[in-house]
Amino acid sequence: MSPRGRRPAGSPDAREAILAAARTAFARDGYRTSLRGVARGAGVDPALVHHYFRDRAELFAEAVVASAAGTGAVDISERAQAISRLAPEELGEGIVRSFVGLWDGLGGDRFSAVIRAAMSNDESLAPFRDFIVTGILGNIMDKLAPDRPELRGQLIAGQLIGFGVVRWLARLDEVASLDIEEAVALIAPTIQRYATGELPSSAA
Amino acid sequence: MSPRGRRPAGSPDAREAILAAARTAFARDGYRTSLRGVARGAGVDPALVHHYFRDRAELFAEAVVASAAGTGAVDISERAQAISRLAPEELGEGIVRSFVGLWDGLGGDRFSAVIRAAMSNDESLAPFRDFIVTGILGNIMDKLAPDRPELRGQLIAGQLIGFGVVRWLARLDEVASLDIEEAVALIAPTIQRYATGELPSSAA
Repeated sequence: MSPRGRRPAGSPDAREAILAAARTAFARDGYRTSLRGVARGAGVDPALVHHYFRDRAELFAEAVVASAAGTGAVDISERAQAISRLAPEELGEGIVRSFVGLWDGLGGDRFSAVIRAAMSNDESLAPFRDFIVTGILGNIMDKLAPDRPELRGQLIAGQLIGFGVVRWLARLDEVASLDIEEAVALIAPTIQRYATGELPSSAA
Repeated sequence: MSPRGRRPAGSPDAREAILAAARTAFARDGYRTSLRGVARGAGVDPALVHHYFRDRAELFAEAVVASAAGTGAVDISERAQAISRLAPEELGEGIVRSFVGLWDGLGGDRFSAVIRAAMSNDESLAPFRDFIVTGILGNIMDKLAPDRPELRGQLIAGQLIGFGVVRWLARLDEVASLDIEEAVALIAPTIQRYATGELPSSAA
């Protein structure tokens, strides 16, 4: 600790201290917790939070999602940024490939652990919901067709979560044994329709 | 109790005794528990189990799913039978309308309770998985296109579970506020494609 009671910027444990403080803050205040408060809790300068983490979504993914998954890092935020650079007609394939690649790569039990941590009760759910809506879907909103993009993003989230539950948590055999190319070929058209397809007149 | 230690067939609590014994048996042995053992546990003649419950799926839905949902009855088995009488091209709309109608009708918190009960750990999951694969999907298998019907059924289950998680558990606002006609119009084409559409060559 420096004389001001703060960890200096170069301290090797500053990043860990931020992650620990963020976990506490997100659990206490939800996704919209103060990042200044996180810095205060970690005993670091607020600028250091932004030095280590691109944005709130990355901090949440690293502090909360990775912790629930029992792994070191979960690059959800980076993947969402990469998806936001795709052409609209590439969204279906790009989103499914990124989603399946991420959780297959980490090992499917990581997905199960996150889903269980998120869903166990309404209180645990709230920050994950805000992370999905704001931190992930917010990044791709301007790629979705302009009529009801929020609805489109939520339909995409539903298809991905359900596919993940069947593949990695319930492990239904036929879906669990698809390779990633088969998974992309099967699910991407659904995601593409939700992303850019015409909405039925009753929902437009 | 009769002299043989069994409840007579007309006993008003025989059905309740079967349900209680079934809950215990499914939890102990999984979905494939012996129905004779259930009758024995309830102190009734095995024929009475079949008198009150059409099949294993109906018994599981009434004993385990309804109990997890905190409600008196969940007519999943009857709905699956009704779906099995639809023409193939009606499956998308029929399945979504039945699924959304069921859980909207019961109140969305019932769906959340069942999902939480099923997913809380691998042990709790197993009987629900067998119920979905055997008790529900088994009923509609011969309506699905003949190439890879099990895969098709599991993809359908994934889309429905994910839509349900977003609508009733996470309650993402745009999906939660769809009326049933909008939900059917948005989700039925996905279900129809999984049920009868051409599979991509990599997965066929």
